[in-house]
Amino acid sequence: MDIFIEPIGKLINEFSKLPGVGKKTAQRYAYKIIDMSEAEAKAFADAILGVKRKVHYCKVCGNFTEEEECAICRTRDKSVICVVKEPKDVFAIEKLREFKGVYHVLHGVIDPLSGIGPNDIRIRELLARIQNGDVKEVIVATNPDVSGDATAMYLAKLIKPLDVAVTRLAHGIPVGSEIEYTDDVTLARAFVERNRL
Amino acid sequence: MDIFIEPIGKLINEFSKLPGVGKKTAQRYAYKIIDMSEAEAKAFADAILGVKRKVHYCKVCGNFTEEEECAICRTRDKSVICVVKEPKDVFAIEKLREFKGVYHVLHGVIDPLSGIGPNDIRIRELLARIQNGDVKEVIVATNPDVSGDATAMYLAKLIKPLDVAVTRLAHGIPVGSEIEYTDDVTLARAFVERNRL
Repeated sequence: MDIFIEPIGKLINEFSKLPGVGKKTAQRYAYKIIDMSEAEAKAFADAILGVKRKVHYCKVCGNFTEEEECAICRTRDKSVICVVKEPKDVFAIEKLREFKGVYHVLHGVIDPLSGIGPNDIRIRELLARIQNGDVKEVIVATNPDVSGDATAMYLAKLIKPLDVAVTRLAHGIPVGSEIEYTDDVTLARAFVERNRL
Repeated sequence: MDIFIEPIGKLINEFSKLPGVGKKTAQRYAYKIIDMSEAEAKAFADAILGVKRKVHYCKVCGNFTEEEECAICRTRDKSVICVVKEPKDVFAIEKLREFKGVYHVLHGVIDPLSGIGPNDIRIRELLARIQNGDVKEVIVATNPDVSGDATAMYLAKLIKPLDVAVTRLAHGIPVGSEIEYTDDVTLARAFVERNRL
């Protein structure tokens, strides 16, 4: 006889699929669901189904949207495009409420080791946007790792000839941190990218 | 304009209701759901609904079950009853696969400060079980805190006159830990409850 009766075991198993959730945490979550009212549990289940049913990708930028074209694409300055790897990067940047331009979600980065080439991510769509629109600058905001850097270099080579400025987010010492504790690679980049005062 | 479109914001909000889950973790969980296939998300939602629909309390012991009477009550030695505060305590003990008796879930402990008296928890049901059955021992496994201890004392006073042994889980130094790092209260209890070798 299993310790957990089947419906509880099933729910624990589902919660275990969430990132960073082990058996113990999944149990705590399952208990919480059991303690919820029927209506609360229904709202939870509906929220999960709703996200799958209503959310899809914007046909322009590739970010999540409920419509055909997302609110950002419809309303903001199209002359600056910020290129990111995934939709969650859009949320991270939007949170700042600083960037006034639009986005382009690549849905991946060039990563030959994983067999992901330029044609596997949304680079063609980006070029089409640049060729059809009045784009002045493309800010490449891929992650500062090997594949993110490679993707940025690749994009720069493609886009610069189209007479569009290509920039990349600055690397350097995180604000508020200490030089002593900054890792070597970051510190070296901070030297290379130093600014005139 | 909100950063998150409504279905995603809603799902993040639902995940935030889980114990120990903040905004950031809830976001990660929501992304995971978005990345799931339709079928996977449906299975997740169904598991949540299933737990609410199928799981209720055993009419005898008060633990979770899908049937009227749980599998433990139906199949195990009824002469020893282990009394616990919540169903999750049953799982913790069942995991050991040591205890062969049955359980009684109080669904709470006596806690006058929170206005919870003996009649608010399943003490009456426990007494009925003892009076109607052939019970030899009641092991009180409430938590070793003020209200858990008070409940244990209260139960002992009620049950002892019925000619049933009442025991309480031992307190002491956790196995594998060091005396040096054991907290004062636990160490003192370990002295009081010391055993003859």
